[in-house]
Amino acid sequence: MWFFKRKHQLKQTRAHLRTASLISLSLLATVGQAQPSVTPKLPPMNIVDIGSFHVGGRFAEVSGKEVKDVVFTPGGAPARLDPNGKYLVESMYVQYFTPKNLKAKLPILLWHGGGLTGVTYESTPDGREGWQQYFIRNGWKTYVSDAVERGRSGFASPDIWPSPPQYLTIDNPWSRFRIGTGGWNDDPAQRKQFAGSQFPAEGYLNFMRQVVPRWTSTDEVTIKAYTELVDKVCPCVVLVHSQGGQFGQKVAQARPDKVKALVLVEPAGLGDPAPEKLAALNGMPILTVYGDYIDQDSRWPSMRKGQLGLNEKYTAAGAKIDVINLPEIGIKGNSHMMMMDKNNMQVAQVINDWLKKKGFTQ
Amino acid sequence: MWFFKRKHQLKQTRAHLRTASLISLSLLATVGQAQPSVTPKLPPMNIVDIGSFHVGGRFAEVSGKEVKDVVFTPGGAPARLDPNGKYLVESMYVQYFTPKNLKAKLPILLWHGGGLTGVTYESTPDGREGWQQYFIRNGWKTYVSDAVERGRSGFASPDIWPSPPQYLTIDNPWSRFRIGTGGWNDDPAQRKQFAGSQFPAEGYLNFMRQVVPRWTSTDEVTIKAYTELVDKVCPCVVLVHSQGGQFGQKVAQARPDKVKALVLVEPAGLGDPAPEKLAALNGMPILTVYGDYIDQDSRWPSMRKGQLGLNEKYTAAGAKIDVINLPEIGIKGNSHMMMMDKNNMQVAQVINDWLKKKGFTQ
Repeated sequence: MWFFKRKHQLKQTRAHLRTASLISLSLLATVGQAQPSVTPKLPPMNIVDIGSFHVGGRFAEVSGKEVKDVVFTPGGAPARLDPNGKYLVESMYVQYFTPKNLKAKLPILLWHGGGLTGVTYESTPDGREGWQQYFIRNGWKTYVSDAVERGRSGFASPDIWPSPPQYLTIDNPWSRFRIGTGGWNDDPAQRKQFAGSQFPAEGYLNFMRQVVPRWTSTDEVTIKAYTELVDKVCPCVVLVHSQGGQFGQKVAQARPDKVKALVLVEPAGLGDPAPEKLAALNGMPILTVYGDYIDQDSRWPSMRKGQLGLNEKYTAAGAKIDVINLPEIGIKGNSHMMMMDKNNMQVAQVINDWLKKKGFTQ
Repeated sequence: MWFFKRKHQLKQTRAHLRTASLISLSLLATVGQAQPSVTPKLPPMNIVDIGSFHVGGRFAEVSGKEVKDVVFTPGGAPARLDPNGKYLVESMYVQYFTPKNLKAKLPILLWHGGGLTGVTYESTPDGREGWQQYFIRNGWKTYVSDAVERGRSGFASPDIWPSPPQYLTIDNPWSRFRIGTGGWNDDPAQRKQFAGSQFPAEGYLNFMRQVVPRWTSTDEVTIKAYTELVDKVCPCVVLVHSQGGQFGQKVAQARPDKVKALVLVEPAGLGDPAPEKLAALNGMPILTVYGDYIDQDSRWPSMRKGQLGLNEKYTAAGAKIDVINLPEIGIKGNSHMMMMDKNNMQVAQVINDWLKKKGFTQ
């Protein structure tokens, strides 16, 4: 159990109502409490433009493979399929949403973490809105992508990418994403969820439905595609999660004229510590955000330490770094998937408030 | 080259302006001509709600496999990954869009074809809007899904699905989807595109970026997931393309109380000819739509013949069948990917007009 300080709560409430009128008071009353979640009654959005495109990719040749007869539909006639030839691989899918009332000066790009797709930001496992809708509602043109090899970006054949993808069991993320200890258990009484956890555990299997296979050999091509995205649609703010930490930092280092601010949500991968790459971040506002239960975890203390150590080098090179450990400002119970936690809108507001303070939005 | 009959053209133009004011006259003037496409200046949409969810899926157990050390990020420390355990596989991603001004009585579900994802309906290879936006703009709550194993639905490991996916070379769809003969050629002068073709060939590589790997062993689980989708969000109208033909017909046969009308856009897979399954379609309005160049193709004459033969059985069982061969009503040049062709909005309007005539929308 945790609680806001009264004054902080009122300030948050007023700010919330002022900035977007998003959340009904009945939801605010439950925010932060590990109760069954309530789908809030939200006012209508007004999105004036939606669409998508793919960026990047390269040609790859396959030769010397046997021509196969493939039955595409059981019972159908075999069709001859020649796997030899030229392929277009390693491009990336990007979907965008433009709200009628733009309040932000730049668009925001939301980049997901490992084993996931842009759906990370679109819906929570218990059916509430995600950060995608939060930023749209708060006046940001919002771009949500599926990293190379994930989701609607597609993936290349073993002839082109020899190493296989990795798959996650249902149990795996339960502890690794700091929801609780042990693994998933169908019986709520047997689940060892952290006390005060904000993760909507009743929807955990919906979260696992969002998980997709992940290659471990595609970091460089993913950075290449994100760089092409930034070249296409920025200047912008880039918000990244987990594995995306590496991508966001390296792309910002490659394109400091395009990435005007960086929000690192529990980055699990680091930027480049080479002096000229540190220097590229001179003057860039960077927010690093961490959730709860980090000290109880086997991996996150050292991962946070690694990023904070790099942050010191960024600061020495002139970057404007802020670090928010959510429990230290009274926001407790957040898992690694804080964009899905029951208080996901409260965390998004912390980020939006920081962006406001930095002058990126009203 | 083709042309509207003058009267038909005026009727189309007026209907278009009346129903949605979507297309500027300057676009209408170019519709049907194999010119470089013009991105039309469209009025703003007003989408009040967007979101997504996954449906379906099953548990699968993997056992007896070796525990591996996996380096997730090059240079990082290896993490132990145990592939044994319980997986959640074969669920399906669905994204929805609700326009402010609902004109249709029911939602419409757009199901894509083989080797593709919901992106089929979202953007054309030359950057215009797709049928997703057309139906939203015309007052339909619109659901766009990625079939099981495609896109944001994810896919299962070879331990669970032993047969591998199929991958398409750049050349493959050029002729198979009736854009032209031979294969893709980077040199426009060397491309053998059909005379009068509406496919935006200059964006062909963007179309190939939308293509994703496709399994040939997942039809049954895909039908299962679509059935769960229909159970969740219908009564509705279901519009399917190509491989989706089988899925739409079989799901309609399984849920005639939920699927109130069926639009089959060049169906490449068939429904169930069993008498009780034919009887299930008694009274159901079904529109079958075909594009151009079918007689010049090696496969499409027999695929169309197969569907039309089945349609006769549907009719005998009481279904209300309409077949539109687009060239016969003066709409020429359409490829298999008519939702991406330069006159994609004109074809969508034919479908919407049919749905209007059947009483599903104003």
